[in-house]
Amino acid sequence: MSIIVLGTVALDSVRTPFGKRKELLGGSAAHFSMAARLFTKVNLIAIVGSDFPKRHISFLSGKGLNLSSLIIDKGKTFRWEGEYKGDLNQALTLNTELGVLSVFKPRVSEEQRAIENIFLANVDPDIQQHLLFKMRSPKLVGLDSMNYWINTKRKELIKLLKQVDIYVANDQESRDLSQENNLLKAARRLCSFGPKMALIKKGEHGVLFYAKKEGFVFSLPAYPVEKVIDPTGAGDTFAGGFMGYLAKKNKINSTTIKKALAYGTVAASFNVEDFGLYRTSRLLPQDLERRLIKFKNCFSF
Amino acid sequence: MSIIVLGTVALDSVRTPFGKRKELLGGSAAHFSMAARLFTKVNLIAIVGSDFPKRHISFLSGKGLNLSSLIIDKGKTFRWEGEYKGDLNQALTLNTELGVLSVFKPRVSEEQRAIENIFLANVDPDIQQHLLFKMRSPKLVGLDSMNYWINTKRKELIKLLKQVDIYVANDQESRDLSQENNLLKAARRLCSFGPKMALIKKGEHGVLFYAKKEGFVFSLPAYPVEKVIDPTGAGDTFAGGFMGYLAKKNKINSTTIKKALAYGTVAASFNVEDFGLYRTSRLLPQDLERRLIKFKNCFSF
Repeated sequence: MSIIVLGTVALDSVRTPFGKRKELLGGSAAHFSMAARLFTKVNLIAIVGSDFPKRHISFLSGKGLNLSSLIIDKGKTFRWEGEYKGDLNQALTLNTELGVLSVFKPRVSEEQRAIENIFLANVDPDIQQHLLFKMRSPKLVGLDSMNYWINTKRKELIKLLKQVDIYVANDQESRDLSQENNLLKAARRLCSFGPKMALIKKGEHGVLFYAKKEGFVFSLPAYPVEKVIDPTGAGDTFAGGFMGYLAKKNKINSTTIKKALAYGTVAASFNVEDFGLYRTSRLLPQDLERRLIKFKNCFSF
Repeated sequence: MSIIVLGTVALDSVRTPFGKRKELLGGSAAHFSMAARLFTKVNLIAIVGSDFPKRHISFLSGKGLNLSSLIIDKGKTFRWEGEYKGDLNQALTLNTELGVLSVFKPRVSEEQRAIENIFLANVDPDIQQHLLFKMRSPKLVGLDSMNYWINTKRKELIKLLKQVDIYVANDQESRDLSQENNLLKAARRLCSFGPKMALIKKGEHGVLFYAKKEGFVFSLPAYPVEKVIDPTGAGDTFAGGFMGYLAKKNKINSTTIKKALAYGTVAASFNVEDFGLYRTSRLLPQDLERRLIKFKNCFSF
């Protein structure tokens, strides 16, 4: 089953202790897609400006993504500039230029409206709602958000969550939205807003997953990576591996969820090993499989 | 195979968001023992003052610990007073009274000198060295330390590490001693000081284990606990479950290590569910077994 992802396609400038790169191809939808494409056909819903390099379009298209609903609008592409220090666990945003993102109204083709697997990556909740409204038969809807929206559009976000199956967030966002410090309590509270499942990403500390109805609590460590070069987009890559695998299997149970979490973990571990999409765009399914075995060996007994 | 643990037996006063308790029986050796006793005979090497309540001696003895080398000296028992706030991840030390700990010279019986499994819980590295020197045939030596000793007795600690098989530390201590931010790099560096293995405890984020020769990298999440009441001693309880299981199995390989890490995790998860030793002192082996199955189900696929 194919998947549709709404999010950003951006030009990222990052500085880490390992170097700096200017205007890399990035954004939540781009990172998500690089992992999800290894499992299923990905339909990318985003907007870029007229300054967006043609070579990036060819690149994304060459990765097998359906770009028919990628809007190229007059104006500037969304740009993000950030820095990581020390253990690279926190991004410090130096600058954000919304550009065409501020006028984004997602477009979706008649054919795409029938897609059942939907991921709403981090953009304005109104834009997420706008796309979801157009979808004809959502079956598995994942949503990511961020502190900015939790603080400025809490009401809209909570309303939107009633239509969402899996809420995906990092630990701080989960605490902020749920107003619970303990992550398991936070996950339960997040599910009380509507989602059947909550997936809390803890960066280098792995992931916590909770399913309301079944009472599943799953917890996986991160894949131990020695050479963390650039964590930008790791969370979106995780979501791409997770949702991509579930879309491919078209079945939700404790085994598919745990395997999906493991694929997300492994995909994210590749993402952090180089700048931007450098590593994940070169990934082959067999790279994921090989690392999945190593990952499993880290904890299985 | 029995085990010997050197550490503190203390009177702990703690405040957490869930209440406060005064002069609870605690200390690194006491917490360690409550988990290790579920696997093997535990010999406790520590010192208390003449003010140490008799009922605590009966209590420890009633738990099956060999107290023949527990020194009761003139003076005051070691006291620690601390507080936890918010997500209970960090202890704020409010007061420490060393008392008799400042004159502690560990005593060990002729019979105990032959014990092969040794855990040197967090005390002055000179005291740890003192005990280790007396042991006749160390086979598996674990050592824990803390930032205070890393900063004030770095040289002594690093010298001592040459005689240690498993260095046990929390994430911050590992970073401080190794001067590496990345925990996998930190583990490798810690092993370069002598130990064959490094075990990095990450609190609510689980544990990272590294074995130099075999190149094993194991990573386990924590057991998801919703009701964290008092984390005091969780790391020592972890070490007790881990070392206790290895002492019982008397065999070090990838399977026994991963199972030992899992038992440590599960033991620590009980420890945080109540104040002091309340929960772990009531634990039965079958409680550990039951939770181990649940824990395994959190990540096995």
